[in-house]
Amino acid sequence: MTVSIIGAGNLAWHLVNVFEEHDLRVAEVYSRKKKNAESITGYLYDVNIKSDLDFSNSPSKLFILAVSDDAIAEVAKALILPNDSILVHTSGGKAMDVLNFAKYQNPSLTIGVFYPLMTFSKGIKVDFKQVPLCLEAENDVSLALLRKLAMSISDKVDNIDSEQRAILHVAAVFSCNFTNHMWALGKEIADDASLDFEMLKPLITETFKKAMKAEHPANVQTGPAVRDDFSTIEKHRNIIKEDEELLSVYDSLTKSIQDWYQ
Amino acid sequence: MTVSIIGAGNLAWHLVNVFEEHDLRVAEVYSRKKKNAESITGYLYDVNIKSDLDFSNSPSKLFILAVSDDAIAEVAKALILPNDSILVHTSGGKAMDVLNFAKYQNPSLTIGVFYPLMTFSKGIKVDFKQVPLCLEAENDVSLALLRKLAMSISDKVDNIDSEQRAILHVAAVFSCNFTNHMWALGKEIADDASLDFEMLKPLITETFKKAMKAEHPANVQTGPAVRDDFSTIEKHRNIIKEDEELLSVYDSLTKSIQDWYQ
Repeated sequence: MTVSIIGAGNLAWHLVNVFEEHDLRVAEVYSRKKKNAESITGYLYDVNIKSDLDFSNSPSKLFILAVSDDAIAEVAKALILPNDSILVHTSGGKAMDVLNFAKYQNPSLTIGVFYPLMTFSKGIKVDFKQVPLCLEAENDVSLALLRKLAMSISDKVDNIDSEQRAILHVAAVFSCNFTNHMWALGKEIADDASLDFEMLKPLITETFKKAMKAEHPANVQTGPAVRDDFSTIEKHRNIIKEDEELLSVYDSLTKSIQDWYQ
Repeated sequence: MTVSIIGAGNLAWHLVNVFEEHDLRVAEVYSRKKKNAESITGYLYDVNIKSDLDFSNSPSKLFILAVSDDAIAEVAKALILPNDSILVHTSGGKAMDVLNFAKYQNPSLTIGVFYPLMTFSKGIKVDFKQVPLCLEAENDVSLALLRKLAMSISDKVDNIDSEQRAILHVAAVFSCNFTNHMWALGKEIADDASLDFEMLKPLITETFKKAMKAEHPANVQTGPAVRDDFSTIEKHRNIIKEDEELLSVYDSLTKSIQDWYQ
């Protein structure tokens, strides 16, 4: 299978890598700035670096849009693709139909989604076999082709439609983005009192392990909120009372935990 | 060193274990229900199981109160200890001076705190060498004795006074309790849409690893809030709008993240 990748960010870097590892040919990589595309394809011996969106002479059947969410519509509008090719985006946050902007230009296209449910950092390889790939396509033939590609690089391939993917994205915001922010706030609280955040890492690690092993993270919830320890809650509120923002987060999450276990 | 442990819960079980491993003698274990104390000391050949709080004939110099936060004051009031002994509690949430209830009965006591910053589950051993032990005592002699005991079982021993410990406890609530609740909410959102929470675990794991490795978790924050992606935020709010509680958590944390990166 021959694919072209539009974008040269973290995800594009990982895709180029994993496709190359599995002998899937990346024919083209596009970036507005040519040197970005060059920087992620240095080791490929036969790749066409593009800084324009005219792919009319491309040997590829599949075009993977790996650009930021905000750029998807704009790039889709400007794409010139060969007839009957498949165009997918890689976003958890956008519905498949944002790619209709490309279909207006070329109605012979099939659109779809190839969403890796993972966070990527440039230069740090991940074990792609463990990365869930969420697939969607307009028709079964294209879905089958995406599935074949996906299963050659990952053991965790699922058909997920746009509505489900949006919900998965919300779940990821809670489970990952908000969680990370809780750690940031924890470090801020420690730093402000000249306490070393390193002291908390063994407990954080153990909490993480327990939650991942539990049938439900709720089954291993601890802390003053779950045991209705109002005197400790008041003591905590008093400690952080001068930071209204922090207090409001504390109150909101304490209430949410209390309501869960009521 | 000879110690006595008052309590027979998860922490008591771990302390009995780790002291025994390091040839520190546990002379007595108290539990209101004798069989609880027996269940955690089955392998000790020379321990006095007690269900009353009269320790006047104890061979121990150090008494470790490992009961729930709510029970500390009540048990402290009822304790009868040998003169000149040291009494510590093991709570992150309570100040040292809650043990003054014991000093009223016996002014010759020295009070202190021996707080392991960790979550314990009965039956699952932890590597105590990695557990931060936070120490406090009324005087330097007792602190030195606590320190000697602590350093024989852990590589991470710190002097932390009651005020710092309270702040550390707040930081732990954010970093651990609230984080765990975020995972619970993430699972609930996934479950409600018949999506498998397992799909999110690789991303959660990667997020955890990144945050722990980063100089500051805030440096690796991702998601719609940090990039001011208002259309995704509105889409998410729309998805969860029927659950007021969840929406209020979403709004509170989104605002907190936005304010952080402003």
